[in-house]
Amino acid sequence: MLRLKTSEAGFEQAFRRLVQDRRESDENVSRDVSLILADVRQRGDAALAELTAKFDGHTLASDDDWRIPLDACRAAFDELKPDLRAALELAAQRIRAYHEAQLPADRDETDAAGVRLGARWRAVDAAGLYVPGGRAAYPSSLLMNAIPAKVAGVERLVVVTPTPKGVVNPLVLAAAYLAGVDEVWRIGGAQAVGALAYGTQRIKPVDVITGPGNAWVAEAKRQLYGVVGIDMVAGPSEILVIADGQNDPDWTAADLLSQAEHDPSAQSILITDDPLFADTVADRVGVELAMLPTARVATESWNTHGVIIEVASLAEAPALANALAAEHVQLAVADPQPLMDAIRHAGSVFLGRMTPEAVGDYVAGPNHVLPTGRRARFSSGLSVLDFMKRTSFIQLDEAALRAIGPAAIELADAEGLPAHARSIEVRLGI
Amino acid sequence: MLRLKTSEAGFEQAFRRLVQDRRESDENVSRDVSLILADVRQRGDAALAELTAKFDGHTLASDDDWRIPLDACRAAFDELKPDLRAALELAAQRIRAYHEAQLPADRDETDAAGVRLGARWRAVDAAGLYVPGGRAAYPSSLLMNAIPAKVAGVERLVVVTPTPKGVVNPLVLAAAYLAGVDEVWRIGGAQAVGALAYGTQRIKPVDVITGPGNAWVAEAKRQLYGVVGIDMVAGPSEILVIADGQNDPDWTAADLLSQAEHDPSAQSILITDDPLFADTVADRVGVELAMLPTARVATESWNTHGVIIEVASLAEAPALANALAAEHVQLAVADPQPLMDAIRHAGSVFLGRMTPEAVGDYVAGPNHVLPTGRRARFSSGLSVLDFMKRTSFIQLDEAALRAIGPAAIELADAEGLPAHARSIEVRLGI
Repeated sequence: MLRLKTSEAGFEQAFRRLVQDRRESDENVSRDVSLILADVRQRGDAALAELTAKFDGHTLASDDDWRIPLDACRAAFDELKPDLRAALELAAQRIRAYHEAQLPADRDETDAAGVRLGARWRAVDAAGLYVPGGRAAYPSSLLMNAIPAKVAGVERLVVVTPTPKGVVNPLVLAAAYLAGVDEVWRIGGAQAVGALAYGTQRIKPVDVITGPGNAWVAEAKRQLYGVVGIDMVAGPSEILVIADGQNDPDWTAADLLSQAEHDPSAQSILITDDPLFADTVADRVGVELAMLPTARVATESWNTHGVIIEVASLAEAPALANALAAEHVQLAVADPQPLMDAIRHAGSVFLGRMTPEAVGDYVAGPNHVLPTGRRARFSSGLSVLDFMKRTSFIQLDEAALRAIGPAAIELADAEGLPAHARSIEVRLGI
Repeated sequence: MLRLKTSEAGFEQAFRRLVQDRRESDENVSRDVSLILADVRQRGDAALAELTAKFDGHTLASDDDWRIPLDACRAAFDELKPDLRAALELAAQRIRAYHEAQLPADRDETDAAGVRLGARWRAVDAAGLYVPGGRAAYPSSLLMNAIPAKVAGVERLVVVTPTPKGVVNPLVLAAAYLAGVDEVWRIGGAQAVGALAYGTQRIKPVDVITGPGNAWVAEAKRQLYGVVGIDMVAGPSEILVIADGQNDPDWTAADLLSQAEHDPSAQSILITDDPLFADTVADRVGVELAMLPTARVATESWNTHGVIIEVASLAEAPALANALAAEHVQLAVADPQPLMDAIRHAGSVFLGRMTPEAVGDYVAGPNHVLPTGRRARFSSGLSVLDFMKRTSFIQLDEAALRAIGPAAIELADAEGLPAHARSIEVRLGI
């Protein structure tokens, strides 16, 4: 864990290193991925079967090897213990409500020149959702990706998920049922992303692909960007807690560790104006780690990437937060609003002492798929807009064309595009 | 030019080929581009100077070699002939008005569980705009990229544009002045995109890069996607005109050619239910081509990529239009609304006989940067949203955490993330 003080010599340099530290795998998988994508594009299901046998140890032969029937998803949901089912339902209902309010309004107006102008939003026809196998197979993540797609109006929502050695995750199936997923295919890796983008004999192509995955999956999405729409390139998770000395250090320690347990590359940062509080939190992190079942991952994350920054005053915090542009920012102070107003770049902000980030991971309602690695400078969390597109429209009558057409002719001529000018001139008899 | 009839055997296969025809350069520039980007990232201005001398024949030595002063942009604007200046001003004013209405609303509400939920939109700090030299150096394109950025609230808007052998395009400078551009750098190619993304000694980095360019520029943007935000990958322009036999064939011929003159790879498609009209339009295209100053480009485009599709009824047209998902769709019929309602995938739609696509290129108001190559299935034209990002926020008090926290604990336990659960439990004294 790194300790910094803004008042110390060398802080700026150390902080710049922190901001520039990408923590992302530089593993060069791009050549492997492009070969896999080319293979799936050319050979379709045959390539999928070979690659799935090789990477997942799962044989794709019968229909049940390929697909998980929706009945099995429903059964998985019905078999959940009641508390867990109720929790999943509360999460789904709150996520749905938040995302329904994101639905954009269409426009259709006629201006003073008599020009009708508008914009119309429509859902994409089909979306694909990657759900990892193994450690990151989270039902909450399935809900966070699938519900915005369904709220957007996507008619065909396709899940791909690897089932290593044939093992399926019943929690993921239950979430798929609850979210209204239409197809579940037992494939993973770059090959599954390729199948969604290009289509195969069995799998029809989709228009947008979202969802978390390993370096191969992320690279496949990056290479297919433009063939399909994708959500933002995702890196390791991160939290920035800005806290004064009036917090319970146990709470703050728990908040930092809730991020650290995700991934050895995850990053937890505390900014505080109270040196004694900083020391106590650091101690409490150590104590908590000793008891934590996920201590192996959390310890590696905290030791390697954890940071505590002491500031002279919390007024210094927003500038640091804006430079870090963190995925999650927690404002653990009595009156968080002034800090919130001063923070320009953050994926999601958690206001006040009673708003641990974890509540946003599951049940608050806003999406937990958020920009990482300083991408909050220019990108946003997942929303219904990622599953929709906008068509603009224009309608003129002769009077309107007479009003604004001559200016277009002038510009077309200046740009050396005479056929553009001509298409207006013939209509105006010029 | 290709003639198809939906009633003929083999139509489906021929149409599928048409839909799948990408018309995009398969030129493999990715290795060259990644070397250039690495060089600019490492050596900064020194790399820029070398590459600009090599590719543009322009020496970067004095400040004036590097930058065009804003005074020079203003002078270029003042020296425009009055009609052209007025046309540019009308275009800017109408583009600004249309995009101002796109500004998204923030959210801030408290729900029945006492949970405060919201979303706040902010502009990115800085945006870079690529403006090509040579044939595609269009002032209209500068306005269409720069004005949405400024309307979004971007404080620093940086133009990069190559000045081959030192030659600048005064129309582009005039448009830069009118749009309120803050910096103009005389660099181009992949190296300019790299400079915008990484920053150099002279050029501060930006957060989003938009604007058209050649294969190198497009590949550089693709490779930097995630380091910065970018607009959609762009391919050659295209128009689909859906017209009944009641149109003046000269008008339709002019519309098809206004697209064809852009680029030898551009595509113009006519769908009509009137075979005689189809023949006449084909003839008129030939006659017009003979008189057109841009005939070389337009002829190559029309001969190679032009298509006329005869349908038994225009009711067949929407399904074809949705499969093509064209950048521009013109509905040249008396009552275009029913066709509009049936078309799901299009970048922009031009309604009625008096709305030639060219009016949208310049002065109508909606953006002319639109998805090409069937990307209207999943993406939208450029808008203020491309220069903004959304931060969600959540605030709970103890009662709210008590209401929804236990469900989050349940889900965190099910996902094997005990520190997540703990961050809620410590606050509730569980």
